[in-house]
Amino acid sequence: MSDGYSVAVVGATGAVGTKLIEMLEQTNLPIKKIKLLASKRSAGRKLLFKGAGIFVEELVSEAFDDVDIALFSAGGSISEKYAPEAVKRGAVVIDNTSQFRMDKDTPLVVPEVNKEALKNHQGIIANPNCSTIQMMVALEPIKQLAGIDRVIVSTYQAVSGAGARAIEEVKQQAREILDGELPENLTTEILPVASDKKHYPLAFNALAQIDVFSDEDYTKEEWKMVNETKKIMEDNQIKITATCVRVPVISGHSESIYVETKEKSTVADIRAVLEKAPGVVVEDDPSQQIYPQAINSVGEKDTFVGRIRRDLDVDNGYHLWVVSDNLLKGAAWNSVQIAESLHEMDLVRV
Amino acid sequence: MSDGYSVAVVGATGAVGTKLIEMLEQTNLPIKKIKLLASKRSAGRKLLFKGAGIFVEELVSEAFDDVDIALFSAGGSISEKYAPEAVKRGAVVIDNTSQFRMDKDTPLVVPEVNKEALKNHQGIIANPNCSTIQMMVALEPIKQLAGIDRVIVSTYQAVSGAGARAIEEVKQQAREILDGELPENLTTEILPVASDKKHYPLAFNALAQIDVFSDEDYTKEEWKMVNETKKIMEDNQIKITATCVRVPVISGHSESIYVETKEKSTVADIRAVLEKAPGVVVEDDPSQQIYPQAINSVGEKDTFVGRIRRDLDVDNGYHLWVVSDNLLKGAAWNSVQIAESLHEMDLVRV
Repeated sequence: MSDGYSVAVVGATGAVGTKLIEMLEQTNLPIKKIKLLASKRSAGRKLLFKGAGIFVEELVSEAFDDVDIALFSAGGSISEKYAPEAVKRGAVVIDNTSQFRMDKDTPLVVPEVNKEALKNHQGIIANPNCSTIQMMVALEPIKQLAGIDRVIVSTYQAVSGAGARAIEEVKQQAREILDGELPENLTTEILPVASDKKHYPLAFNALAQIDVFSDEDYTKEEWKMVNETKKIMEDNQIKITATCVRVPVISGHSESIYVETKEKSTVADIRAVLEKAPGVVVEDDPSQQIYPQAINSVGEKDTFVGRIRRDLDVDNGYHLWVVSDNLLKGAAWNSVQIAESLHEMDLVRV
Repeated sequence: MSDGYSVAVVGATGAVGTKLIEMLEQTNLPIKKIKLLASKRSAGRKLLFKGAGIFVEELVSEAFDDVDIALFSAGGSISEKYAPEAVKRGAVVIDNTSQFRMDKDTPLVVPEVNKEALKNHQGIIANPNCSTIQMMVALEPIKQLAGIDRVIVSTYQAVSGAGARAIEEVKQQAREILDGELPENLTTEILPVASDKKHYPLAFNALAQIDVFSDEDYTKEEWKMVNETKKIMEDNQIKITATCVRVPVISGHSESIYVETKEKSTVADIRAVLEKAPGVVVEDDPSQQIYPQAINSVGEKDTFVGRIRRDLDVDNGYHLWVVSDNLLKGAAWNSVQIAESLHEMDLVRV
């Protein structure tokens, strides 16, 4: 790398792409050059990186010729087409889409949990789903403490995970409702899933659908939480099931996580390991009404854990309320952390 | 009762009181007279009942002299003081507050589940907590089918459960956010709990606190779900634990309920009993994106159940997504159904 890496951001103008640029401004990763790639439509726009204007270039295969690290966040089909092209040209790809996550040869990495998996990379590393990442950060210390037998999670996911247009849609719906518009007359073009057949209002509502429906009547988002957890924790014996729900929050995913440990444990032990865990901030003082809140997580890189309580009817069953900025730890920051880990572990050159 | 009952509504001008009047307009219960009671401040206001204007009277003990059925929804301290006064004067009280719910001599009733408990009433019948009621309606048919071993519930509760002022507050906060106001400058005087020390924004946020904190770091709302479930189902062996969360929804509570049955069961069996169950409407067709939504439940008396799925890792574990109008089945409608049941069972005279 001599004097630093040449880093490309694919999907630079999107909701996550914008945050990737911000996180790259804050990383210690040595960067000699930054390249912003996007669709032809966005090419020519100028974005700032550490105060300097950088023109967005059109995404073509040749753009990766001089790139060391390429961070992808422009949708699964873009990653499918261009990630292998980037690898062929010598770049290591950190992909924020679901395209390669479950491929046997692709490490799926949350650095606090399984950074060792990076050693086996074949050029592409997958960034897990936002809702999975923050759960992993909170559960890994508990797994280390007492093992994990089972997990039941219900999510309260923010709209920014559905992209910039979805944010505008939920704000528009909120304005319409505050102006007295009836539910049947609200603007509904994108949510819950842009590509799906029907669209519903999310403002002042809760939608138990994120991504499209799949096998066994689970949504793909729910399957991601189930399958990615088993892969990241390298444990197919963990029992895990999920219900994923979109709520009218702009950014910051909240999760009601129920966990049963394998071995005997206590709330005090769990709190103690979480307080020492990397990337975790415990916010948990009921006497002072302290618990994590989505609105407070925005712009923060950490995962916030509170409402730590035992199930009074089941031994070794515990509740956690886990909140994180889905665009940062759930996406951009985790991707940049992977890049930092690759650098530290001398794994950038394939 | 000769030609009908004299029915009083205590707290007639509140969020639930208004709905009690609406539900009394729709009931088949024979009503000869309706009496609207509220604080001195609201006395003299005129409300409509079946098109006729009725003056709100000040709540005093003597107001119950000619009352057969008194529906209370004006806060626990009002019920504590006036419910015994009403009983003393010959009325049967249906109380929507938490004041008497766990008293040994007070039946706690969801008519679809345990109407037989009314037979033991001593003058006061308690209406369960909103979040408990809709869960009971959905779980009782499953209990009848295969028994219930354990329940883990995470709620997505609407703001109308916190009263009319809380609704105005969350709307005000939403307007402020849409106008670009920063989170730290939002109007926060009531939510999450008016009487508690700190207040936080709910608009575009999720607050893992409903009611004040209590034993074992559970909130009182969470304790209500645990204790009321055991009482209504008359089963202290049911393992039940809850996380109660307020979301920025005006009306309509949603619940992510995880249930494990005692005996072998299937999704098809569970769907079949729910489709036949009183007060339940199954809305569950992933192929058509059909699942219950808070916004659609408003004004409906039923409890809507969807997202019925099995836990793929645990035998006899199932998910339900349960939605109902917290002001109707969760409060006013359940109270009026109790009155109807008392009438049918000839239990109005104590």
